[in-house]
Amino acid sequence: MLQVVTRQDALQIIKENTTQILAVESVPLQESLGRTLAEDIVSVENVPSFDRTTVDGYAVKAADTFGATDAAPAQLEIIGEIHMGEHAAFPLKSGQCAKISTGGMLPPGADAAVMVEHTDTADNLCLVYKSVAPFENITKKGDDILSGTTALKKGTRITTAETGVLAALGIMEVPVFKMPVIAILSTGDEIVSGAPQPGQIRDVNTHLLTAAATARGCTVLPYGAVKDERETILAALKECINKADIVLISGGSSAGTKDMTVDILDTLGKVYFHGIAMKPGKPTIFGKVQGKPVFGLPGHPLAAYFVFRLIVSEYIRFLTGAPVEKPTNRARLALNIPSNHGREEFLCVTYNETGELVPVHTKSGIISVLCEAQGFIGIDRNSEGVEKGTEVEVYKL
Amino acid sequence: MLQVVTRQDALQIIKENTTQILAVESVPLQESLGRTLAEDIVSVENVPSFDRTTVDGYAVKAADTFGATDAAPAQLEIIGEIHMGEHAAFPLKSGQCAKISTGGMLPPGADAAVMVEHTDTADNLCLVYKSVAPFENITKKGDDILSGTTALKKGTRITTAETGVLAALGIMEVPVFKMPVIAILSTGDEIVSGAPQPGQIRDVNTHLLTAAATARGCTVLPYGAVKDERETILAALKECINKADIVLISGGSSAGTKDMTVDILDTLGKVYFHGIAMKPGKPTIFGKVQGKPVFGLPGHPLAAYFVFRLIVSEYIRFLTGAPVEKPTNRARLALNIPSNHGREEFLCVTYNETGELVPVHTKSGIISVLCEAQGFIGIDRNSEGVEKGTEVEVYKL
Repeated sequence: MLQVVTRQDALQIIKENTTQILAVESVPLQESLGRTLAEDIVSVENVPSFDRTTVDGYAVKAADTFGATDAAPAQLEIIGEIHMGEHAAFPLKSGQCAKISTGGMLPPGADAAVMVEHTDTADNLCLVYKSVAPFENITKKGDDILSGTTALKKGTRITTAETGVLAALGIMEVPVFKMPVIAILSTGDEIVSGAPQPGQIRDVNTHLLTAAATARGCTVLPYGAVKDERETILAALKECINKADIVLISGGSSAGTKDMTVDILDTLGKVYFHGIAMKPGKPTIFGKVQGKPVFGLPGHPLAAYFVFRLIVSEYIRFLTGAPVEKPTNRARLALNIPSNHGREEFLCVTYNETGELVPVHTKSGIISVLCEAQGFIGIDRNSEGVEKGTEVEVYKL
Repeated sequence: MLQVVTRQDALQIIKENTTQILAVESVPLQESLGRTLAEDIVSVENVPSFDRTTVDGYAVKAADTFGATDAAPAQLEIIGEIHMGEHAAFPLKSGQCAKISTGGMLPPGADAAVMVEHTDTADNLCLVYKSVAPFENITKKGDDILSGTTALKKGTRITTAETGVLAALGIMEVPVFKMPVIAILSTGDEIVSGAPQPGQIRDVNTHLLTAAATARGCTVLPYGAVKDERETILAALKECINKADIVLISGGSSAGTKDMTVDILDTLGKVYFHGIAMKPGKPTIFGKVQGKPVFGLPGHPLAAYFVFRLIVSEYIRFLTGAPVEKPTNRARLALNIPSNHGREEFLCVTYNETGELVPVHTKSGIISVLCEAQGFIGIDRNSEGVEKGTEVEVYKL
């Protein structure tokens, strides 16, 4: 009989007994949204690649404007105009300036820009009524991304923001991971795919876990629901192992079913742990069959979701080289939350009008709370609860 | 010359001058992730559809266990076992109980369940050592989703959580909106698609806005970058209008370009506003050509992103019937943030180690801050800044 392990130990056991299986491929930038970077992106150029002004006005040597006022404007010779997209080749000498538009390239010798609103012109003279400091109103070469720096790290999910950085660096082909193929098998004598009779319930886990794995960027093979019969599960699991990189088997809740899954995994391969000291999610199994990881998830949808979120998803982060997930923010509890010493507890939460956290109370297996929740919190297994007013870390669902 | 409007007025003007153009289609549940519900989902059944136990043990009448202790257990007659997925047809009478597994259907007459750990058996008798209250250890019919209630609202983006609810209700075909086709046009003499020469910069907006609109569920037609020439832009805009439902034209930053876009829109259709009192994002244009909305966005990538996020995305929410977006949470500022009276200001922020907000400082047009940021905050246009320690609303990027 295997011991119940902590979540931290569970993740450690999983990492030590699996290898990073992901292949790498290259996709066009336009198709990279949602994919995961397979390499660090190191900039080989400065962005921008030249000093630019951030205002419409005149490129100047800042020192030439020092002390300028409405009563005593600085008088600078306008030696030309820099058009957008043009190489500003003519150098500024002391006492000179050049007309420039927002985003235009500063000519050699210029170190600041004066806003057109603070100037007047008289023939080829520009009257500057307000001094500027060196580097005022300009973006320096490399201010956005410096050449030679790591602009994006391996393991980063590509969102809109990363797309912008990749475009700015001219990376039109992006190295990304081929995400694993995950087979999903739902078991339970009470689980039906069609209309449920009294005593039966619909198969939620197939759809919930398919969505969760798809949202995580994986390819999913939903096997569907099968009865809690040894030969049926054995055959289904074998088929899943043959077709996928990872198998999720969400258990029926019949007494003894979990032991059956463990027994089948032991027959086909090896079980590494059976039970995690967390709630929801205690009846979680991890094993390997033909070198492929198999996760036994609880039958209750909410518990299955949390195990996916905290164990399977973290394992996928590991595969992609991403660091352990960080909380999205911190907030105070609106009320006391009791918890059982000895197991880590996770709760769905919402924010009240004053921004404090309120648990979305629920019984095990209730799925609709996931839609109401705005995040979740964890309570340490060495704690007997958390007091009202305590600031806690909040994770996104 | 049109006046600069507030963001709130801008959104109002857009809503008043556009119609809800989205068609509705039905997609299989498995393909609905990321889509937007086109109808309220009203439950026509209870989830669960029967009273279930949440423990392994015995279904009982709670009153029969009142006063039970280790020394004086309640003695109940075991009249049968309820198998998973079976209709529990035999009714419990006072003094009787039935063996049941987690998730099993309570028989008529039972109103609670006793955990097996708190029982012993002797022949056909169950000894109960701990009393249970009515409804203890059970999920009542409809506890998750009550028949006749709105389980999910029109306009909801379907995430993993919603998939679970739809599956629980047996909704295998989901009514979703056909999201609009958005054409994206990038203009500017300094913008190039290939390798930039001195004075030139890469086209970031085409990729950034394509990703933002794709992430929002829209179909995107990226037109690419064109020079700031009236005839070129006019021809490109006409083509975009013909092919798409909505056009985004992100402007070059040359002085006078914005006026050119306004002038072209006036020629082809009508301009409703030119300028929003917000930073970044002031040079934003809204017009209509052949009944189709055209948004003129700033040329600077960060500003273009914020206008997409705060104006275009909010317009898309409106099209789908979704309510105005709410902040994801509240947090305190780690330092004073000054702001200019008269315009609303938006800043990218991160959380420091103590969970307080720190702005990601940047110059206009710098795109890499979007990757560093964990959210953004807005500062009211009637404010001259927000003091350190003030709790403010945080929005996700």
